[in-house]
Amino acid sequence: MSGENIKHHCGVFGIYNHPQAARIAHLGLFALQHRGEEAAGICTSDGSDLHLVKRTGHVGEIFDEAAFAQLPGKHAIGHVRYSTTGSSTITNAQPCKVDYSRGQIAIAHNGNLVNAQILRAELEAYGSIFGSTTDSEIFVHLIAKPSYRSHVEGVVEAAKRVKGAFTLTILTEDQLIGVRDPYGFRPLCLGKLGDGFVLASETCALDLIEAQFIREIEPGEVVVIDRNGVKSHFPYKDAQIPKAQCIFEHVYFARPDSTIFHDNVGFVRERLGRQLAKEHPVEADIVVPVPDSGNFAAMGYSHESRIPLAHGFIRNHYIGRTFISPTEAGRSLKVKIKLNPIRQFVKGQRVIVVDDSIVRGNTAKSRVKLLRAAGAKEVHMRISCPPHISPCFYGIDFPSKKELLAANNSMKEIKQFLNVESLGYLSLKGMLEATMQPATDFCAACFSGCYPTEIYDDVDKFKLENKRKFFDL
Amino acid sequence: MSGENIKHHCGVFGIYNHPQAARIAHLGLFALQHRGEEAAGICTSDGSDLHLVKRTGHVGEIFDEAAFAQLPGKHAIGHVRYSTTGSSTITNAQPCKVDYSRGQIAIAHNGNLVNAQILRAELEAYGSIFGSTTDSEIFVHLIAKPSYRSHVEGVVEAAKRVKGAFTLTILTEDQLIGVRDPYGFRPLCLGKLGDGFVLASETCALDLIEAQFIREIEPGEVVVIDRNGVKSHFPYKDAQIPKAQCIFEHVYFARPDSTIFHDNVGFVRERLGRQLAKEHPVEADIVVPVPDSGNFAAMGYSHESRIPLAHGFIRNHYIGRTFISPTEAGRSLKVKIKLNPIRQFVKGQRVIVVDDSIVRGNTAKSRVKLLRAAGAKEVHMRISCPPHISPCFYGIDFPSKKELLAANNSMKEIKQFLNVESLGYLSLKGMLEATMQPATDFCAACFSGCYPTEIYDDVDKFKLENKRKFFDL
Amino acid sequence: MSGENIKHHCGVFGIYNHPQAARIAHLGLFALQHRGEEAAGICTSDGSDLHLVKRTGHVGEIFDEAAFAQLPGKHAIGHVRYSTTGSSTITNAQPCKVDYSRGQIAIAHNGNLVNAQILRAELEAYGSIFGSTTDSEIFVHLIAKPSYRSHVEGVVEAAKRVKGAFTLTILTEDQLIGVRDPYGFRPLCLGKLGDGFVLASETCALDLIEAQFIREIEPGEVVVIDRNGVKSHFPYKDAQIPKAQCIFEHVYFARPDSTIFHDNVGFVRERLGRQLAKEHPVEADIVVPVPDSGNFAAMGYSHESRIPLAHGFIRNHYIGRTFISPTEAGRSLKVKIKLNPIRQFVKGQRVIVVDDSIVRGNTAKSRVKLLRAAGAKEVHMRISCPPHISPCFYGIDFPSKKELLAANNSMKEIKQFLNVESLGYLSLKGMLEATMQPATDFCAACFSGCYPTEIYDDVDKFKLENKRKFFDL
Amino acid sequence: MSGENIKHHCGVFGIYNHPQAARIAHLGLFALQHRGEEAAGICTSDGSDLHLVKRTGHVGEIFDEAAFAQLPGKHAIGHVRYSTTGSSTITNAQPCKVDYSRGQIAIAHNGNLVNAQILRAELEAYGSIFGSTTDSEIFVHLIAKPSYRSHVEGVVEAAKRVKGAFTLTILTEDQLIGVRDPYGFRPLCLGKLGDGFVLASETCALDLIEAQFIREIEPGEVVVIDRNGVKSHFPYKDAQIPKAQCIFEHVYFARPDSTIFHDNVGFVRERLGRQLAKEHPVEADIVVPVPDSGNFAAMGYSHESRIPLAHGFIRNHYIGRTFISPTEAGRSLKVKIKLNPIRQFVKGQRVIVVDDSIVRGNTAKSRVKLLRAAGAKEVHMRISCPPHISPCFYGIDFPSKKELLAANNSMKEIKQFLNVESLGYLSLKGMLEATMQPATDFCAACFSGCYPTEIYDDVDKFKLENKRKFFDL
Repeated sequence: MSGENIKHHCGVFGIYNHPQAARIAHLGLFALQHRGEEAAGICTSDGSDLHLVKRTGHVGEIFDEAAFAQLPGKHAIGHVRYSTTGSSTITNAQPCKVDYSRGQIAIAHNGNLVNAQILRAELEAYGSIFGSTTDSEIFVHLIAKPSYRSHVEGVVEAAKRVKGAFTLTILTEDQLIGVRDPYGFRPLCLGKLGDGFVLASETCALDLIEAQFIREIEPGEVVVIDRNGVKSHFPYKDAQIPKAQCIFEHVYFARPDSTIFHDNVGFVRERLGRQLAKEHPVEADIVVPVPDSGNFAAMGYSHESRIPLAHGFIRNHYIGRTFISPTEAGRSLKVKIKLNPIRQFVKGQRVIVVDDSIVRGNTAKSRVKLLRAAGAKEVHMRISCPPHISPCFYGIDFPSKKELLAANNSMKEIKQFLNVESLGYLSLKGMLEATMQPATDFCAACFSGCYPTEIYDDVDKFKLENKRKFFDL
Repeated sequence: MSGENIKHHCGVFGIYNHPQAARIAHLGLFALQHRGEEAAGICTSDGSDLHLVKRTGHVGEIFDEAAFAQLPGKHAIGHVRYSTTGSSTITNAQPCKVDYSRGQIAIAHNGNLVNAQILRAELEAYGSIFGSTTDSEIFVHLIAKPSYRSHVEGVVEAAKRVKGAFTLTILTEDQLIGVRDPYGFRPLCLGKLGDGFVLASETCALDLIEAQFIREIEPGEVVVIDRNGVKSHFPYKDAQIPKAQCIFEHVYFARPDSTIFHDNVGFVRERLGRQLAKEHPVEADIVVPVPDSGNFAAMGYSHESRIPLAHGFIRNHYIGRTFISPTEAGRSLKVKIKLNPIRQFVKGQRVIVVDDSIVRGNTAKSRVKLLRAAGAKEVHMRISCPPHISPCFYGIDFPSKKELLAANNSMKEIKQFLNVESLGYLSLKGMLEATMQPATDFCAACFSGCYPTEIYDDVDKFKLENKRKFFDL
Repeated sequence: MSGENIKHHCGVFGIYNHPQAARIAHLGLFALQHRGEEAAGICTSDGSDLHLVKRTGHVGEIFDEAAFAQLPGKHAIGHVRYSTTGSSTITNAQPCKVDYSRGQIAIAHNGNLVNAQILRAELEAYGSIFGSTTDSEIFVHLIAKPSYRSHVEGVVEAAKRVKGAFTLTILTEDQLIGVRDPYGFRPLCLGKLGDGFVLASETCALDLIEAQFIREIEPGEVVVIDRNGVKSHFPYKDAQIPKAQCIFEHVYFARPDSTIFHDNVGFVRERLGRQLAKEHPVEADIVVPVPDSGNFAAMGYSHESRIPLAHGFIRNHYIGRTFISPTEAGRSLKVKIKLNPIRQFVKGQRVIVVDDSIVRGNTAKSRVKLLRAAGAKEVHMRISCPPHISPCFYGIDFPSKKELLAANNSMKEIKQFLNVESLGYLSLKGMLEATMQPATDFCAACFSGCYPTEIYDDVDKFKLENKRKFFDL
Repeated sequence: MSGENIKHHCGVFGIYNHPQAARIAHLGLFALQHRGEEAAGICTSDGSDLHLVKRTGHVGEIFDEAAFAQLPGKHAIGHVRYSTTGSSTITNAQPCKVDYSRGQIAIAHNGNLVNAQILRAELEAYGSIFGSTTDSEIFVHLIAKPSYRSHVEGVVEAAKRVKGAFTLTILTEDQLIGVRDPYGFRPLCLGKLGDGFVLASETCALDLIEAQFIREIEPGEVVVIDRNGVKSHFPYKDAQIPKAQCIFEHVYFARPDSTIFHDNVGFVRERLGRQLAKEHPVEADIVVPVPDSGNFAAMGYSHESRIPLAHGFIRNHYIGRTFISPTEAGRSLKVKIKLNPIRQFVKGQRVIVVDDSIVRGNTAKSRVKLLRAAGAKEVHMRISCPPHISPCFYGIDFPSKKELLAANNSMKEIKQFLNVESLGYLSLKGMLEATMQPATDFCAACFSGCYPTEIYDDVDKFKLENKRKFFDL
C-alpha cells in the first residue's frame, strides 16, 4: 500500500516542564512525522501566555531558529497532520489555540468524531462561530461553556459530549492534559524526561528524545499533568464502554519500532506475516516485500515458510513533494519512480510478493507487471490483512466504497485484475489472533463493517469538507 | 515622518460581480498597500462557499497563480494590514472568515473599537472563544447571535453594539456589505466596474482597476450590494452622532492621489503647506521636502512663499524587508540609508525643511544634522500639522505619550533638540481651515486631546496585545 | 523614461583594508543598486584566498548572514548587473574570479568593449575557452598571459589591448586595483574609510558608508592600492586620447546625489531643465515632473520659467519583481500601476510635462492620455536631452534603431503620435553647455551618431548574446 | 556505513535525439541521485546553441518548469555531484560548458584525475585561467588546443593526456560523446530510447526512462553518437592497460538494482554476504542489517547461514538537509534520529549485525550501544568488505588515514572499541572471488594499498580544495 498514498490521520505530542520544550516537541513531532506529512504546529506556554507556530510542510522545514524564538516556555504540545491540497490548509492546521473566559487553551487532536456535525449544528444554533472544519474547534467550544469552574472541568465535561475517536493533548498556561477516548481507537503513551513528563501518540517519539516510557494512557483516561504531578480522571468509568483499538494502526499506520496497544508494532506485523504463511502457503522460490510497508509481514512469511527473503524491489527515497513529473511520462512512471525491481533476483523465480494491504489495486497491478517484465515465472500476492470493504469513521481517510477494489469484486476477479498465479488475504480471525489479545479489544470495522459506535452524523447537511467523502460510499 | 515608521492602520476592499474578482481585489489591495504593508488577504465567494488566502508579506508577493487558483468566484473582499513582529502574525491577519448558523461570512476591518474589551469580556462570559485579538472577530461573534434572521440583520445589529472606528467590507455567499461607523473616522468609497460594484478605502484603488467613482459611503451607512443592486441602511440615523473624520488621513496616511472626505488628499496637503507658509514665514533660499511625506506641503509652502522648491534629499526606494543591516553600522546609517542630502543644493543655503509631522524627533534631528554636514547655512523646520500630544484610540499606532516629543517638551526645547534656526508647526485652527470644511467634521484628538467618543476600555484587564500600548501614556 | 525600462549597465565597488570588507561592499552595492538590479556579487580576499558569492536578485536579498560567513577577509570588490531573463544569468554575473599562473584574481567590469569579438576570436584561436559572454573574462585571459611578471603588469598590459568602455575594480590576494579607460566613459571615484581605501562607480556609495571622498580616478588611470598605499599608472599617457564621458550618466543613469565627472548629477539636471525652459518656453499653469526621472529637470524648468512645480503624478513604489499582473488587464494597466495622475492638480490646467528622455514613445503617449483623461487643458512635453537616434556601443542597452521613436519620425510626427500641444527636446548644444565643461569632454554618440572610438566589432560572426542587438539597427 | 556520510563521487547522463531531452535527463539524474546529492545540472543542445541550468540542491527541487523552459533541444547531458558546504559550491557544479574556437562544448565528469595538478600547472604556465577546481575544466582546456580539427579529435587527444579515473558525457552542438578511462574505474552504460541513444552511469537510469539496455561502454572506449549513429574510438588500444573497476561501486556506491561491470549490484552484494557467512560463521539467533547499506549482504548472510533475517533497526527517511538539530541534543541523537532499534526483536537475542563497511567507527560503535540498550545478549558485527586502510585517488572521498579506524588499530582493538562479542571483515580474496570475475579486473586499492596507476600529484603545491586531503594521511 505504500504507493497508494492513504492519508494518515494525525499525531500528537506534549511535554511538561523542560527548559527547551519547543525543541523537544520538535523532535517528538519529527519521530511522528509518518502520522501526518503535510502540516505541523507547536504551541508553548511560558507560564502565562501561549505561543503558537503552525505551518504546512514537513516538521524539519517548519521549525527553524526564527520559529523557536517565537516559542518560549517550559511546556508545549505539538501536532502533525495530513492535509488536503492547497495552501489554505493552514486554516485547519493544529494545535487550535484560543482565548476564552478562563484563560488560554490549545488543543491537538488525533481522530475523528462521529457526532461532530450534530454538535457543530447545536453550537452554531447557540451563536458559535467556526473558523475551521476541525474537530478540535468543537472541543474548545464545548470546553468554553461558562458554567465550568476550571480548564480541567471543561475538558472532562467536553469529553463526555463528544463521540468517536479522539486522542488529545491539551495545553493551558500551566497544565498539560492528555485525553484518550473510551474506545481507545488511537494510541497515546506517557513518558518521563528529566523532571518533566511527555505525552506522545507512539513510543518512537519517546525513544528519540530519550524519555523513559512509563505506560500507555488508558482508554477513557484524562490525565492532568501540572506542578502537583500526574493525576488521572476517568469520566466514562461507569459507561462500560468496550475497547476498540484500531487494528490498522498495527497493520500499517504506526511505526514498526513503536509500542502501542501493549505490543510492538513490528513484532505484531511479523506475526501477521507468519499467520499469512499458515493460511496461504504456496510453493515458491523467494519472498519479496513491497518496501517499506510489507517489510515485516514478508519477514514473518519467510520465517514461517522457510522460503528465503529477497529484496526484489528497490525503493527510491528521494521522492519528495517537490518532484516535477514529466509531462509525457509513460503511465507506469508513477509506480516505477518509487520502486524498481531487481531483475537478477526475480528472473525465472516463483515470487511471493507481500504487502500490507490493497486499496484501489492499481498500484499492486502495476507492480505485478514490473515483476513479470523482470522475468518472474510466477507471482503470488499475499496481503497481511483482510480485504477492505467499508469506510472508516474514526480518522482514516480511505477512498470511497466505489473505489475500494475488494468492495466491488470477487476474489477471482481481483486475482484476474492483478494477474497473479495466486492471491491470499489474511483472514479477519487470523489477523485478530495474531495480536494475541482478545479480538473484542480491536476495531476492525473497515474489514468487517461492524462499527463499535453509532454513526450519528448520517446526514451531510453541513458543508464540512472532511465529512463529505463518507457519504458517497 | 516617513522615517519614523508609524504603523498604518489597515485598508479594505470589496468587489461584487466580476468574473475575475480575486484578481481585481489583488489590484485594489496593491493600490492600498500603503495602508498596511505586512499582511494581506483576499476572501472570495463562488456563490455557495467562501475561499480565503491570507499571508504575511506584500500584496505583490502573496498572490501568485497558485493563490488565484484557490480563490474562485465573482465576489471578493480584501484587506491589507500592518503587523507586529513575528510570523505568528498570521493569526491576526484578515479577512476573518467563519461558518456560523446562517452560513458563511468574512469580514475585513479598518479602525479600532473603543469598547472591544468590554464586548470581548461579555462574549467570553457567555462562552465565546477567540482565536485572534482582532476587532473583526468580535464583530462576527456579535453577528452570529442566533436571534437575527439574516446576515444583514446581524451586521446591522452588531454595528449598533460596537463603539469606535470601524470601516468594514463584509462578504457572504451572495452579498457584499460595506459599513462605515457613524463618526466616519476612516474613509470608504463606492465605485462601479462593468456590471459590478466596488468598495475601497481610497479612490486610488478605483483608479487602478479603472472603476468609476460613484460616491463615498456616508458615516453611519451600511450598504448592501447583491443581485438587487445597492441598498443602504442607516442604523444610527436617530443618534445624532457628529462626524469625526480623521484629519491625519489627510495629513499623512492616505495616498495623495486619493479623494477622501470629499477632497483630494494631495490638494489638501498643498493647502496645508500654503497655510504653513502664512503662519510661519521665513527668509530663506530653498524649500526642501522630506520625501515623500513632505512633498505636497513643501510644494504648497513654495507656492505661497515664492521660495523655490529644491529636491535636497534623495530617497532610496530599494529598501525592503530583506535588507540586512551591517552589525557595526554607524548610528546614522538607518537614516542615511533612506535619505541622502544633495550637497550642491544645500551648501551655503538657508534651507526650509518641510515634513508632515514629528513623532519622537530622532529622525528629524538626524536629518537636520545631515543638512548641516552638507553645508546648509540655516535650517528652518516646518511641520504641516500641530504637535502630537495625545494617543489615538481609533486605529493609529502612535508611540506612547512618554515617547512623543511634543508631549514632553516646550517649543523652545524642541527647537534646541532639533538644532534648527527656527521651527514652525501648523496651528490646529490653520490645519482645520485648510480642509475648507467645518472644523467640527474632523477628529483631531491626537493634537487636541479632545476625543469624539467615550473611551470605554479604560482598564487593561485583558491580555490583548494591541490594546496595551494606550495605557502606558 | 522611468517607465521604459532601459537596462542600466553596471556598477562596481572596491574596499581595501576594512575588518568588515564584505559588509561594507554590501552597503556600497546597495547604494549603487540603480546601476544594476538583477544580479550582484561580492568577492573578498582573506590575504591568501579569494571568496566569491554572486546570485541573481536585489542586493538586499542576496547577502544574508550565510553569505557573509562565506566572505571572510579585509579586502573586497563588488558588482551589480542588469540581466537578461532567466536564471541561467548567473553564468554572466560578476565578479569573475579565476586561478591562473600568478595566483588568484577577480574582476568587476562596468562598460562595453568595442573589440571584444576580435580579442575573443584571437584568444580562442590560441586555445582559450570561455565560460561566459562577459568582457571581464576577456580581461582575465589577457591578464593571464604568462610573460607578465605580476598581477599589476598583467592588468596594465591587458588594459592596453582592449578598446571601448571599461571601468574595473580588480582584487588579488593583497591588492585592490581600479581601472578607468582612457576615454573615461564611466565614472569611478576614490575614497578613504578609516585606514582603508574605497573605489566606487558613484560617490553616493561613499556617502552611505561614510567614507571620505578623495578624488575621481582619471580617464586612463590604473590605481593600485596595497600595503604601500595608493599608486597610479597611466598606460595611455602617450596616446593623446580625448575624454568621452557619457553624457547620459548625467541625464539619466547616475543617482542625483552623486558627484561624477566633477559635477553633482542633480545639479546638472537642474541646469538641463533651466536650459530646456530657455530653449522651449511656453505659457502654462504648472510644471509636472514624471517621477522620479524627470524630477530635477522639472525643478530647473520651474525655476527658470517661474511656472510653479506641481506633483501631478503619484508613483507607486511597491512594484517589485514579484508582482503578478492580472491576465485580463486593460492595456493601460502597466502604465497606470506605476503612475497615477492627480486629477485636482491637472484639471483645466495647461500642463508642462518634463521627463529625461523618450525612447520608444509608448509610455510617454500613455501618460499624455492619462493627463488628458484627468482633465488637462493642454499638454506640453519637454525632454531634457536631444532625440535618441543612434545605438550605444559603450554599455547602454538602448533598443534597436527600428524601435527608437526619434530615429524614425519627424518632430511633427512625434508630436502627433504623443498627442501634445507642443513638444520640445533639449538641443545637443544646450545639453552640452549645461554641463559647464568643454563639449569635447563628453560622448553624446546616441544623440549625434559621432562615436569617439572605432567600432571594431563590425561583423557579428560570433554567437555572443550581448552583441547581437547592435547590428540590426 | 550509511550513517558515516561518505561523499559519493558523481553521476553522469546523456541523451541524444529525444523531443524532451531535458525532461529525460531530469529523470535520469533522479535515478542517479544517490551518486551525488548536493548539486545537479543539465546542459542541452538545440542544434546550434548549448543551454545550461545547474544549481545546488536535489534533482527534484532544481528542475522546475522555469528550468525546463531554459533547456530547449533534443540532446542533453546531466550531472549530479556531492558538494562541500556552502552555496559557493555552484562554482564547481557541472556540467562545465564553454565556448572555444571550434564552437561550444559541455562536459560532465565522474572520477578523479591523478595528474590534474601537473596538467593544471602546465596549462596555467601557458596562460590558461581556471574558474573552478574541477577536473572537467582541465579537460576542456586540453580539448581546446587549437591544432585539433574537430570536437572529437580534441576529446580523443585530451583523453590521452589525462591519467586516472574519468567517465565523461560530453555534449557539442550535434554530438553526444561518452568516454570511459582505460582502467574502467567508473561504470558507464549505453541504452536506446525511441530513435535516440542514452548514456548513464548506471542502468537504473535506463530502467526509469524505459530505455533499452544495449551494453556497457568498454574501458578505454570513446563513443561518439551523432546523426550517423554510434561510432567507437579506442585511443588506448595499444597501451595494454589492465582493467581496474572500482570494487567499492559493488560494495556500497551503486544502486542495488543497477547492472555495472557486467553484474547486478544487489546480486553481488548478496554473494558478498554469503561469502561473509562462510568466512565468519557464528552461532546466533538473528541477522540484522544496517539499513539500507547492509540490506543485501545481510540477506546473503542469512541465506547462507540459515539464521533468520530480522529488521532490528528502523530507518527514518524524513531526514533531509533542512533538519535543525536541537542545541542541547544528547550526543547519541545524530545516530538515533536515523536509526531506532526494535527492542522486541533484539531483546535477549544473539544478534549478527551486517553492514557494508566501517570507516571511522563511531557510528558503528553507537549502533552497538543501541542494540545493547535494547537488550541484545550478544552482538556480532560482520562487514561485507575488508578493512579500509588506504586513501582513494580515483574519486571517493574517504577520510584521511588518521581517521580510518582500521588503518590505526588491530582487529582486537577494533573489537574492543566497538564492544562486540565478535567481529568479522570479509577477506580481500573472498570479496574479489564473490565478483565471479578475475580479481585483476578490479581496483581494491583502498583495501590493499596497491594502486593501479602512478600517483603523479604527489606534491600539493596548488591550492586545490579537493586534493589536499589526500596528503595528510
